[in-house]
Order: sequence, then C-alpha cells, then structure tokens
Amino acid sequence: MGLAEKVASGDRRAAARLISLIEDGDESIRTELADLHCRGGHAHIVGVTGSPGAGKSTLIHKLAREWRQRGKTVGIIAVDPSSPFTGGALLGDRIRMQELSTDQGVFIRSMSSRGNPGGVAKATADAVRVLDALGMEKVIVETVGAGQSEVAVMDVVHTVLVVVVPGLGDDIQAIKAGILEIGDLFVINKADRDGVEVAQRELEMMLELEGEAKGWRPLIFKTIARTGEGIGELVDNIEGHWDMIKREGLLEESERQRCRREVLELLKHKAVLALLSEYGPDDFDALVREVARRKLHPHDAVEKIMEKRKK
Amino acid sequence: MGLAEKVASGDRRAAARLISLIEDGDESIRTELADLHCRGGHAHIVGVTGSPGAGKSTLIHKLAREWRQRGKTVGIIAVDPSSPFTGGALLGDRIRMQELSTDQGVFIRSMSSRGNPGGVAKATADAVRVLDALGMEKVIVETVGAGQSEVAVMDVVHTVLVVVVPGLGDDIQAIKAGILEIGDLFVINKADRDGVEVAQRELEMMLELEGEAKGWRPLIFKTIARTGEGIGELVDNIEGHWDMIKREGLLEESERQRCRREVLELLKHKAVLALLSEYGPDDFDALVREVARRKLHPHDAVEKIMEKRKK
Repeated sequence: MGLAEKVASGDRRAAARLISLIEDGDESIRTELADLHCRGGHAHIVGVTGSPGAGKSTLIHKLAREWRQRGKTVGIIAVDPSSPFTGGALLGDRIRMQELSTDQGVFIRSMSSRGNPGGVAKATADAVRVLDALGMEKVIVETVGAGQSEVAVMDVVHTVLVVVVPGLGDDIQAIKAGILEIGDLFVINKADRDGVEVAQRELEMMLELEGEAKGWRPLIFKTIARTGEGIGELVDNIEGHWDMIKREGLLEESERQRCRREVLELLKHKAVLALLSEYGPDDFDALVREVARRKLHPHDAVEKIMEKRKK
Repeated sequence: MGLAEKVASGDRRAAARLISLIEDGDESIRTELADLHCRGGHAHIVGVTGSPGAGKSTLIHKLAREWRQRGKTVGIIAVDPSSPFTGGALLGDRIRMQELSTDQGVFIRSMSSRGNPGGVAKATADAVRVLDALGMEKVIVETVGAGQSEVAVMDVVHTVLVVVVPGLGDDIQAIKAGILEIGDLFVINKADRDGVEVAQRELEMMLELEGEAKGWRPLIFKTIARTGEGIGELVDNIEGHWDMIKREGLLEESERQRCRREVLELLKHKAVLALLSEYGPDDFDALVREVARRKLHPHDAVEKIMEKRKK
C-alpha cells in the first residue's frame, strides 16, 4: 500500500512521514502527492494569522476544542517558527497544546522552512492535502502575519482569520501590508485589555476604506482566548463563512484561483531550473559577473538568457 | 539629455520622476536603468529592518543627521507602508521627517508596492540605483522586518541593521524567521525601557546558536533614538562594517551574489510570461480547471507545460 493510500485509510504515522518527506522536498513522492490531491477536496481550510504576541496559538487551541465538541475532526499546521505548536515557545504553552495531541480526532504538525523561505508555502499546500486526505474536516493553518510568504501561505485556505490585540497601535497599521485585503474575519483577542474600543474603531475604519469588493463584508469579533470568551460565536461565524462560500458557488472559483497560483509558483521554479541548465551554469556565472562589474543591467542579462533559448 | 544622465548630473526632480516610472513598472525606461546601473556602484547601502513600533523611522532620522554632520550625503528609501516617511503615521512624526527633506544633501523617497508584493524588491533595487547615481553616499532602505519580501528587499543592501525593542518578548523570537540570519548589526532601541538586559541576553543567545558562518560576528547596540543616545557609536560601527567589507575583498563577492539573486528573480518573471504565452492562455486555464477538479496535481500540470515547450 502506498503512503497516500495509507493516509486515506486513516494511518496517522503515514501522514507524519509523508509531511516530513514534503518538508525535505523529496521528489520521489510526486505520485503520492498527485494521488492525495485527487482524493482530497473535502476539508474546510482555515488560516489564522497575526502578529507575534496576539495569542494566535491559544485561540487555535480553543477553536480546536470547540470543533471537537461539535463532533468535527481538526488538523493544525503551524508555519510560525515561534508557535508553541512548533516547540518555539514557553514550556507551559507547549504542555497546554499537548493536551490536544492525545486526541485521535486531532492531528497537529509544525512546518519548518528548512532554510528555504519560498518553500514553505509550497510545502504547506501539500501538507494541507495530507490532512485533508487523512479525513480532517477542519484544517487550521497558523502563520505569523506579515510579509509576502505569509500571504502566500494564506493562498491555500478558504477562510482567513486575522488576529490583533488592543493597545499596540502600530500593529493595526502594520496589518495593512497585504493582510487586510485577505482577511475574512477579524478577531480582537485579549479583549479584556485597555484599548479594545480604539482597536475596533481603527479596524472598522480600515475595512471601510478597503471597500466591499469581495462580496463578504469582513466581520470583527472580540475574544479572550485564555478564558474561552467569544469562541463559540467565532466558530459559528467561521462556519457561516464556509456555508456562504459553498452556497454562493464561490468554492469552485476559489479552488480555481488557489490552483492557478500554485501552478504558477511551481512553474516559476521549474522554468528557471530549465533555463539555467540550457544556458549552462558557467555561462550564467560569467553573465552575473558582467552585471556585478556594471557592464550589464540585470534586465539585459535576462534578455540574453531568453534569447539563447529561442535559437 | 536622458533621465539617467540628468540624475547623474544631480537633478533631483529627474530622480523623483525616474523612481515613479520604476514603481509603475514602465518598460520604456529599460535603457535608462541599464545606464544608471553602469554609472553606479559607489554608495554604501544600509538596510534597517524590524517590527512596527521598534522606532525604525526615528532611528533612521538620527542616523541621517549624524551622517550629514560627518559630511556624507544620505538617501532614504522607505518600503514600509506604515513608515512616517511614507505618510502612514502620525502628523508629528511626519513633520520631524520633513526637517530632513529641506536639506539638499538628503533625498527621501517612499516606495509603494502598487498591489504587486513581489514587485517591491525589484523596484527598490532600481530605486537604490537612482540614489546611487544621484551621488548619495549612504542609501538607507527601511522595511518592516518580517516575511519573505522584506528579506528580498534586504538582498540589495551591504549592511543590515535589525532593530528590536525590549519588553516585547515574542518579538525577539519572531525575528528568527529569516531576519536573524541576515543581520550584521542588532540595535536594541528604546533602551530606557524595562527589559533591556533580557532582550540583550536573548539576542546574544540566538546569535550564538546562529554561529559565526559569515566571518563577521554580529554586534549588539543599545540606542534611545528619541534622544540620540548611542547613535554616534552605532554610526561608527556601521562604517566599521563597510570598511571591513571593502578591506576583506568581500564587496566584489557581495555584489556578485546580489546581482545573481536579482537576475534570477527577473528571469523567473520573464520565463513564466514566455511559457504561458507559448502554451496559450486558454489551454492554461483549461489545465488549471483540471487541477481544481482534482484530476491533476499542480506538479503534473507544470510538467505538461514544460513538455509542450520542448517540442
């Protein structure tokens, strides 16, 4: 039995092994991944993003517990290297998270970039396929919320939660950089702190500026993840978003867009490898030296590589 | 006289105009950019990165003033959309920054991504060329420090400053994600706050784990940018890093690596455009639909595109 088949039959060890091979960028599992992709497409994939210190991990912990109580299986993929799920945080947090990991209806996994920042989004997309095929009904993907690679990770999810905390002022500004556009639900966590009202007003203003281009007006929730306050209502609304996507026929379009982006990303990678091997590594080095000596602009170097290929 | 020639003769309006065309992705300035590239290579390019709220802009303001007092011309490129240099912050900050902009030895410019996150690194590289050709001896590039695009922006600089603040705990953890590896100097700003010693110890530990692979042992400095404390010593050490690069013959190697990365990035972009136009946009859409319907894994779709090209 192949690894993909084992995963589909519910073999958790096969799932863990397959994700490790994905992280390693092992090319020998190409067929398994194709198999997984064709078996999947059932899970609801939920992204949780936000600054370090916003309480994302505690929130995810509570979301997972709420879904378990509602009879759903839950997969968690933590892409944030400082997440307690990945062992990057305080011992107390790690122990709290382990409570979940003894539950057979939960599968937790952290992803590391292994020094290849672009690789994380690619590997995460395939890890989501594994948990989907394993039968996890909800798959939560956690990333630290800033920068292009996080936005790329969020490309693979259906519903994006953006988590902020009151009283950090600057942070609300900072999420503008690429994250605001992709948020479906906004969570003001640690809502027992000062500054909740200010944070809420700022968010509302920013979302208003953003307009309603998406057909879904982003909602704002207040939670105290530590005590569980607001979690039930939040889960209701995450389910509401999922129902809306399915009801409005948006799922097919969203799948198509996700697949398009993924194909383009892989194509970039393959195309450059092919071009470089055709042009010849030594000739490429010589070209780069010319650019470094300021005899040639990078654009013109690229032109030369593309020209040679046409011949 | 072409725009590049005007820039090289010190025409600030030509520089501003050229950077706008760069931001627009205007293809008609290709020759100007090549010209600029060949005229440049004199500036010391300094990157400043760190979380929102770390006080990067105030620090840059003080660095610029210190360099002006030492007789250097200074260019500033702010890539952070929440930076006071870009008008994203409080009025008071903006006014403070404007004090610099009346000085003819200073050129300040913000870069916007215009909705294309990948484009910022590319545009910043060319904007640096403009300020270099304009004769700015120090060019400071400011980015918010997390995520792949920020790391990509830092590819174009010689010396990377990572700015942190005490008392945010999590933040020190968060900078691990790609930023720690590229820092040459670490600045603990707002050093009059509680928790400086903890922040310093954590940084030291993390840098020790990181090893000394680079031949330059990263240094840690404490500053209070608001009052100017520690700025003189920091500038001394930024100059020390620049001297070291030049002395050890590292500049040529670093230029080569920077150019290599830039050529590869441009090549990716061009190669995908060429492949898609060959394969045909309609056939590509059909392929993406097959992936979305789970008949085909993205890898296999890419394989098909690459196969057709070979014929």
